[in-house]
Amino acid sequence: MPPIVALLTDFGYADTYVGVMKAVILGICPDTRFIDLSHAIQPQNVRQAALALLTSYRHCPAGTIFLTVVDPGVGSSRKPIAAQAGDYIFVAPDNGLLSYTLADFNDLKIVELNNPAYHLHPVSKTFHGRDIFAPAAAHLAAGRMLNELGTPIERYAKQLTPQMKINGSLISGTVLYADHFGNLITSIGELVWEDPGTLALTPRFGSREQTYLINTANARIAIGTAQISGIHDTYASALRGSLLALVGSSGFLEIAANQGSAAEMLKLAAGASVTLEVVE
Amino acid sequence: MPPIVALLTDFGYADTYVGVMKAVILGICPDTRFIDLSHAIQPQNVRQAALALLTSYRHCPAGTIFLTVVDPGVGSSRKPIAAQAGDYIFVAPDNGLLSYTLADFNDLKIVELNNPAYHLHPVSKTFHGRDIFAPAAAHLAAGRMLNELGTPIERYAKQLTPQMKINGSLISGTVLYADHFGNLITSIGELVWEDPGTLALTPRFGSREQTYLINTANARIAIGTAQISGIHDTYASALRGSLLALVGSSGFLEIAANQGSAAEMLKLAAGASVTLEVVE
Amino acid sequence: MPPIVALLTDFGYADTYVGVMKAVILGICPDTRFIDLSHAIQPQNVRQAALALLTSYRHCPAGTIFLTVVDPGVGSSRKPIAAQAGDYIFVAPDNGLLSYTLADFNDLKIVELNNPAYHLHPVSKTFHGRDIFAPAAAHLAAGRMLNELGTPIERYAKQLTPQMKINGSLISGTVLYADHFGNLITSIGELVWEDPGTLALTPRFGSREQTYLINTANARIAIGTAQISGIHDTYASALRGSLLALVGSSGFLEIAANQGSAAEMLKLAAGASVTLEVVE
Repeated sequence: MPPIVALLTDFGYADTYVGVMKAVILGICPDTRFIDLSHAIQPQNVRQAALALLTSYRHCPAGTIFLTVVDPGVGSSRKPIAAQAGDYIFVAPDNGLLSYTLADFNDLKIVELNNPAYHLHPVSKTFHGRDIFAPAAAHLAAGRMLNELGTPIERYAKQLTPQMKINGSLISGTVLYADHFGNLITSIGELVWEDPGTLALTPRFGSREQTYLINTANARIAIGTAQISGIHDTYASALRGSLLALVGSSGFLEIAANQGSAAEMLKLAAGASVTLEVVE
Repeated sequence: MPPIVALLTDFGYADTYVGVMKAVILGICPDTRFIDLSHAIQPQNVRQAALALLTSYRHCPAGTIFLTVVDPGVGSSRKPIAAQAGDYIFVAPDNGLLSYTLADFNDLKIVELNNPAYHLHPVSKTFHGRDIFAPAAAHLAAGRMLNELGTPIERYAKQLTPQMKINGSLISGTVLYADHFGNLITSIGELVWEDPGTLALTPRFGSREQTYLINTANARIAIGTAQISGIHDTYASALRGSLLALVGSSGFLEIAANQGSAAEMLKLAAGASVTLEVVE
Repeated sequence: MPPIVALLTDFGYADTYVGVMKAVILGICPDTRFIDLSHAIQPQNVRQAALALLTSYRHCPAGTIFLTVVDPGVGSSRKPIAAQAGDYIFVAPDNGLLSYTLADFNDLKIVELNNPAYHLHPVSKTFHGRDIFAPAAAHLAAGRMLNELGTPIERYAKQLTPQMKINGSLISGTVLYADHFGNLITSIGELVWEDPGTLALTPRFGSREQTYLINTANARIAIGTAQISGIHDTYASALRGSLLALVGSSGFLEIAANQGSAAEMLKLAAGASVTLEVVE
């Protein structure tokens, strides 16, 4: 099976930076297949990248090598690392980008990418994506073992996790991001339908030991200037253009507008507060 | 020959939705090659997607599987379908996205994608691209037969076709879309050069039984505030910055500006009226 | 090793033009791998494309075929060409797009792509990317020799090179472009660190025979309303949000803002003047 490298960066689509990383990889491991998860992470927004990785990595085939570069500290003392976790390998700057995802795994092997034999020389101080991370991903794709690329380390940097609190019947969270359609994805999750009308909520950020059952007919969502009743299961189940709350494709509570943009209607973006109250 | 999946969506480039679909496909059929036709269809604009597919599918190799997802009704009663047409297979929601293209074929085999063995479980109500359409495309790429994926159906949904009318010497149509360069692509086509100075017009939308010959020296185009004489064959044949009419790369009449944007100059977009009169 | 085609165009991401070129290529050479260098060159900006190619081609594997299409003169008398240079082949309109890059090579073989056996018929007058350039790249990828595709030519069109002048201790240049992060990449280069505090400058545009040494502690950069002292080696070495000068990943002097956009802070874009003075 040909090796897969999945890319996630804040490099955008205007410059040749992404193409150059792929060029470097194909020079080392010609058989590599690429999956572009996104290159439109907001510049230097490590937390947004951490969330994007968390909500997408599970869908990638076993063996996928993730090359994730959002790197405001490029050239500084932050370490370049690679982490083996389950059937995956993650290559990234050690700035917390991987932390939401690595929390899903018990057995981790992490190395600092400090073996110069696997760097592209001369190593620039401004584009480790090209000179350190892409070569590391490529050599791993070509079959090198993690411990050939550098020395083991025990700890990795962690990003603060998004807030989600449960206080009696009141659940409070924040908007994680607005997607391309203007859907507002919130930190309230992970939500799974038990049966029609009942959702199971297992906190995704924080302790996952407890699960709460929510009768969706009794759910009242407050976000910005809007009050929304009930939690739907499809966009199309609301009137065209009207707001609704539903369970998004990654299991988080989502505020959407059927065939419209909730972000525009509510003039809200990442960071906005949202509450979900279960009234009896 | 490795299987090819050509993707056309309104998912944009900011989120990981497209990458996740490719991840799902590579998990099922690791040898798949991808062609990204576009992911920048306007959100929920099924008609724009139908046109983009119509003007591009012919250039794809025989055997290509098209994964086309613009799906405002996701999770509602609209069916997910796959259609075999000539050497191609098209996977899409049954909302008319395929209708302009399928009209080019006589022999069609269509199934509803209702065999759960080929779905990704649990099937979400909000992202059938990931859970139904991508797996269907992947299993077809891996060699499954159409009728394994679901039960045959006879009819498929149709979008209204763009207007193009011929009334004596007056041909009237609409702007289908403005492309990245600001060229206004109209519904007047299909146009083929017979010889220099003479175009053959075979109505692309509606009956294709009759062909009209146009002496381009006698052509007068009216669009917005502009009057344009003649139909050129190259952008470069007009003065820099001035408007011209020409035959676009898909055979439709196009209003362009040499090294400029006709859409900006005329402040026009999809839906604007255009007429072509042949004066004698 | 599977053939690689690296694409660089001004086609954008909204339309199906790039996808159609890839479709045509896979129809001719199914095993092709693609590297998208960029499709966001400003419409018809041949000089920007020439720079993007210059700063990225070296990172592509030997044997890469470059398909570079920014083509304001499509359908006019400008020739379609392919050039063999070192281990690379470049396919492009002969409008200067290749000139910065080809200047790096001594031995060039160039042909005009005038053999109709390797065109897609009928050849449109408006989309040679699909009908001439993509098929040429594909046939070369499939193993055809350069001279099968057309007749040799001796000269190729050249773009004016960006300005960089040295006058005593004053070096003057221009901003080449602002990248996705708002970093202003200038024509002052090629810069290589000799040791910490000392840069070697070998003029990239113009005579490359002389190399100058710069004590970076004595460097004073003037750009727009800003005066900047010193040349850093990392973005992170300046205060958050403050401007700095550093050596970019392609060896050009770059004006950046740590975790901010220098282009926005200075309200500058391509064409702005920059000077670097070495004070003693």
